[in-house]
Amino acid sequence: MADTLSALRSLMASHSPPLDALVVPSEDYHQSEYVSARDKRREFVSGFTGSAGLALITKKEALLWTDGRYFLQATRELSDQWKLMRIGEDPAVDIWMADNLPKDASIGVDPWCISIDTAQRWERAFAIKQQKLVQTTKNLIDEVWINRPPAEINAVSVHPLEFAGRSVADKLKFLREKLGLEKAHGIIFTALDEVAWLYNIRGSDVAYCPVVHAFAIVTSNSAFFYVDKQKVSAEVKTHLEGNGIEIREYTAVSSDVALLAVGELDAVSTVRGTSTELTEDASKALSGAGTRVNGSSQADSGTDLIWADPGSCCYALYSKLNPDKVHLQQSPVALAKALKNPVELEGLRKAHIRDGAAVVQYLVWLDAKMQDNYGASGYFMEGTEVTKEKHLKSLKLTEVTASDKLEGFRASKENFRGLSFPTISSVGPNAAIIHYCPQAETCAELDPDKIYLFDSGAQYLDGTTDITRTVHFGKPSAHEKACYTAVLKGHIALGNARFPNGTNGHALDILARVPLWKDGLDYRHGTGHGIGSYLNVHEGPHLISFRPQARNVPLQASMTVTDEPGYYEDGKFGIRLENVLIVEEADTKFNFADKGYLSFEHITWAPYQKKLIDPSLLAPDEIDWLNSYHSKCRDMLAPYLNKTETEWLKKATEPISV
Amino acid sequence: MADTLSALRSLMASHSPPLDALVVPSEDYHQSEYVSARDKRREFVSGFTGSAGLALITKKEALLWTDGRYFLQATRELSDQWKLMRIGEDPAVDIWMADNLPKDASIGVDPWCISIDTAQRWERAFAIKQQKLVQTTKNLIDEVWINRPPAEINAVSVHPLEFAGRSVADKLKFLREKLGLEKAHGIIFTALDEVAWLYNIRGSDVAYCPVVHAFAIVTSNSAFFYVDKQKVSAEVKTHLEGNGIEIREYTAVSSDVALLAVGELDAVSTVRGTSTELTEDASKALSGAGTRVNGSSQADSGTDLIWADPGSCCYALYSKLNPDKVHLQQSPVALAKALKNPVELEGLRKAHIRDGAAVVQYLVWLDAKMQDNYGASGYFMEGTEVTKEKHLKSLKLTEVTASDKLEGFRASKENFRGLSFPTISSVGPNAAIIHYCPQAETCAELDPDKIYLFDSGAQYLDGTTDITRTVHFGKPSAHEKACYTAVLKGHIALGNARFPNGTNGHALDILARVPLWKDGLDYRHGTGHGIGSYLNVHEGPHLISFRPQARNVPLQASMTVTDEPGYYEDGKFGIRLENVLIVEEADTKFNFADKGYLSFEHITWAPYQKKLIDPSLLAPDEIDWLNSYHSKCRDMLAPYLNKTETEWLKKATEPISV
Repeated sequence: MADTLSALRSLMASHSPPLDALVVPSEDYHQSEYVSARDKRREFVSGFTGSAGLALITKKEALLWTDGRYFLQATRELSDQWKLMRIGEDPAVDIWMADNLPKDASIGVDPWCISIDTAQRWERAFAIKQQKLVQTTKNLIDEVWINRPPAEINAVSVHPLEFAGRSVADKLKFLREKLGLEKAHGIIFTALDEVAWLYNIRGSDVAYCPVVHAFAIVTSNSAFFYVDKQKVSAEVKTHLEGNGIEIREYTAVSSDVALLAVGELDAVSTVRGTSTELTEDASKALSGAGTRVNGSSQADSGTDLIWADPGSCCYALYSKLNPDKVHLQQSPVALAKALKNPVELEGLRKAHIRDGAAVVQYLVWLDAKMQDNYGASGYFMEGTEVTKEKHLKSLKLTEVTASDKLEGFRASKENFRGLSFPTISSVGPNAAIIHYCPQAETCAELDPDKIYLFDSGAQYLDGTTDITRTVHFGKPSAHEKACYTAVLKGHIALGNARFPNGTNGHALDILARVPLWKDGLDYRHGTGHGIGSYLNVHEGPHLISFRPQARNVPLQASMTVTDEPGYYEDGKFGIRLENVLIVEEADTKFNFADKGYLSFEHITWAPYQKKLIDPSLLAPDEIDWLNSYHSKCRDMLAPYLNKTETEWLKKATEPISV
Repeated sequence: MADTLSALRSLMASHSPPLDALVVPSEDYHQSEYVSARDKRREFVSGFTGSAGLALITKKEALLWTDGRYFLQATRELSDQWKLMRIGEDPAVDIWMADNLPKDASIGVDPWCISIDTAQRWERAFAIKQQKLVQTTKNLIDEVWINRPPAEINAVSVHPLEFAGRSVADKLKFLREKLGLEKAHGIIFTALDEVAWLYNIRGSDVAYCPVVHAFAIVTSNSAFFYVDKQKVSAEVKTHLEGNGIEIREYTAVSSDVALLAVGELDAVSTVRGTSTELTEDASKALSGAGTRVNGSSQADSGTDLIWADPGSCCYALYSKLNPDKVHLQQSPVALAKALKNPVELEGLRKAHIRDGAAVVQYLVWLDAKMQDNYGASGYFMEGTEVTKEKHLKSLKLTEVTASDKLEGFRASKENFRGLSFPTISSVGPNAAIIHYCPQAETCAELDPDKIYLFDSGAQYLDGTTDITRTVHFGKPSAHEKACYTAVLKGHIALGNARFPNGTNGHALDILARVPLWKDGLDYRHGTGHGIGSYLNVHEGPHLISFRPQARNVPLQASMTVTDEPGYYEDGKFGIRLENVLIVEEADTKFNFADKGYLSFEHITWAPYQKKLIDPSLLAPDEIDWLNSYHSKCRDMLAPYLNKTETEWLKKATEPISV
């Protein structure tokens, strides 16, 4: 690591202009949250393995910014050469750079790895001291990364209509109507899940995310898919070309965006799809400026804007456009993708039932193992008679061997395609590390005296899942029960909320925290994220977070969102409960101001451990909800469970009395 | 009114440049919410009497923007010539002007009546179509307002230290330290309550607000008070000059700001106070730039900025400054005034007890009258045997005659100085008009079959009060009870919240709405506002509102804030419950992240009508809170009540059983 830093500092010194600092973001060329092994540049340089963070290397310092989910983990992983900067507590990176780097400093960054928004915000912060954001021509990390993993060549697959629920033709038609309404000639897609959604394709270039390393450009006349052509089978080619999509090499996107900027990209296209019927509105918007023809003439037709999403499009591509002709606005696909169609909703419901069955099977198996191997009193009993010595080495259960079993239960289910993120399987103090990722060699052993938290999910062809449960196989302390119950109360309060259309997730976030705040407790992460339909497990544009969002996207019917409050005591234990919810229209008694009201449908099915609940802290309506949810769990999961499992679930879901 | 509009349009046409539109804001030269009679220009021109709104007169149209509290009232009051624009539903005024007025349009406004923020926002909106914001040299409304009330000459009084709790010398010292830290030479105060707070003076120039029409300027060396000198007694002169404050004519502020801009104002001052001791930090900030001397030399000393609050300072004064040398930031007095000192807190508590006693006395009196005059079953009984015919004309109770009695009970209390806003005394459908203001000639009669809502408060020397209760003297419907109970649940949830330092009122707002949202109900107003200490009943900079605030001021210990959710059914009834709360440090069991937690102390004391509560809709902890609050009511108010009143209150506060 020391060598890496000094090698980088040499490159920074010999760069033209010489760099006073180098920024290394976590993101790849597509602003992805999860990136492939060869794109883990920030991890390579800093040693910090969390999914979110930003490294800054100056002539003398090396700093890493990350958020509250990762404070503990980063403290453990960073070497002495690195200084941890806590987001929300320490100055933000742009402020820090502006304050601490010299006047006129040159601050380098690979412009493919930062978004337009970020670059522009930094440039504004830098202007005060005449500092400059310098786009490096090469990625300096790649230059010093000797054993950088090679690019993976994984096949692209077609995501069939029976799962996608909406044809590419229909999606392109919708998109071109949006272009017309915004007087844009074309749009650039860099977000991998947006490309996958738009073209109904999937891949496996990034672990846990069924996406392909690709870009897309769509104009009113043509459509392009930029990908390593080795990945494209004849079937995929037929699928794409049949929809009028031209397949181009991944690296061609750079020069093609330059062509797009001068209105010459359409001429490149050799594939022609069926003409797109526009709505009356869109036609009007377009026709106002005279007859449209192909090629460069759109510059004269009043539709010469190029649409780029400032939050996801990289600064490198933006820099090839004429800034006066860029339409900077959230991609229309972000919201369209979040609003699940009926086929996707049905798929998600089914996938979550199968997934819940796998979780129950895991709990049944784990319960038996904890009793057999460790003499634990088990899932149901609170006995203190634990004989930890009892287990033999061959019977030892670790965070990794346990979660491998969970993966096995999932893998046995229909449509399983892999996990949706690295399973967080965490015992005792490890559960307090919010995004803990156990390693086979170093991970902890299960312990009947400690809380066990598992946060996991899978990719199924019909939907992506994400669930967290927290359990104890021995005797939990009164404090652990009180904390679990407070988390559960927040989880129920949010999940049962009804709210008018127009309400955003930031407004709802507090509902999950209020029961914890009563006791002076809280958690350092957001409360909910959207989830894809056989796509990324984290999906925008909405969010349930304590941070106000710059893009204030209200929750809307047919969105998915998680409900996952928690509580973490450093060095001791962690608690989190997570269900996936679908936003639905609420059947309220009244409809004040004709706004329409929304509520949530829970689609995750697995019991909450009653042993960890202190019923005296629950209100009657909370107990009612819990009993009703548990009763539905039995019904939903029954078809997937054997007799033992069914009996176990019956016991686990027996009503709590008020 | 027609004459007024055509007279205005003539003036607009003959103005140089000719105006395409004229904006008439509600505010006076001080951006006040409540204004004196002669400053009610927007009301004069439009006929709409609500406290908030903005009129726009174009060559052909006349439009009035107001918010949800006033939709019903504005509909009633506006003539056919006027179009109501609903804030939150219709386009905002600046967007409307930019969209609907011609390219290059000249839009006139009296620059004394709009804030810097508003003017700059409009100018940005207008730039797209090269429209111009034109500062009229005279106020055109004043030109056509024949019977405009004369300026009132009311005496200024000193607000004694026993109520203010903090000396002027101490406040000026604090302020000059702030100036030093921000490298500002001087600051302009235009908000009337800020001037009153800073100089410990009060007045009666504006109904309900104990303020003086005045400006203030404070520099590191001098301090000025701009007021009609006829209002200043020898005692006040001694008080001010003793604190180094120069008294200048109200109209001199304009030329003095011009002097301030060029660093020549200090030379005008003939009064010299004691020198201000600065903290080490402030001294350092100032001394970094060399020795300071009087007069224009601060321009060279690095402290040449002039501080103006963009939200409260008028555009007219801003226009006299060099924009490069203006420090646009919220006035430091806004927050300092909101953080009540211990003397103010104790005064507020005491004032609210006396005020609560007046409310109970009113309820006792009203209960008897409703039974005697109308044959109502009364506050406690739900009988339907109402003999409305019974009353004689001489016994008739109206919204105004009733609330006059309430004022009488208040006026009998120690330190009473007047009401803090026009009492909202409203029967049945009138209660659905959120800021209803009954008029003696036209107001409704009390009705034992209808809900009665009263929202009222007073100015006492030791504190300002604001309380709302909603009652029924006959048989409320099940729907009215359900709505009352939902409002009460929201009121309790907000009032009982605990939350970490850093939380702002926007985040908490939802707590008061969730119980209503469950049934698809809501209300079109914010949930809480700060309240002054013998000052304005509405006071910033914090707010509990569903709208995110541009100035995100977190709630802090020792702030006051109201808790006033409601529900309104147009044409039928309205419900609102309001207490004043003091933000205090919470004694939580834990203190996660060492943030410190906050909670609220209720300081308003008056019973909630149990007849309107459906206990089956309350959770056990809500019932506990209610019983405990009611029990405290008895203790608090006992010293101020006679035997009959005490007995009545005892009955009204008997515990509800779970």
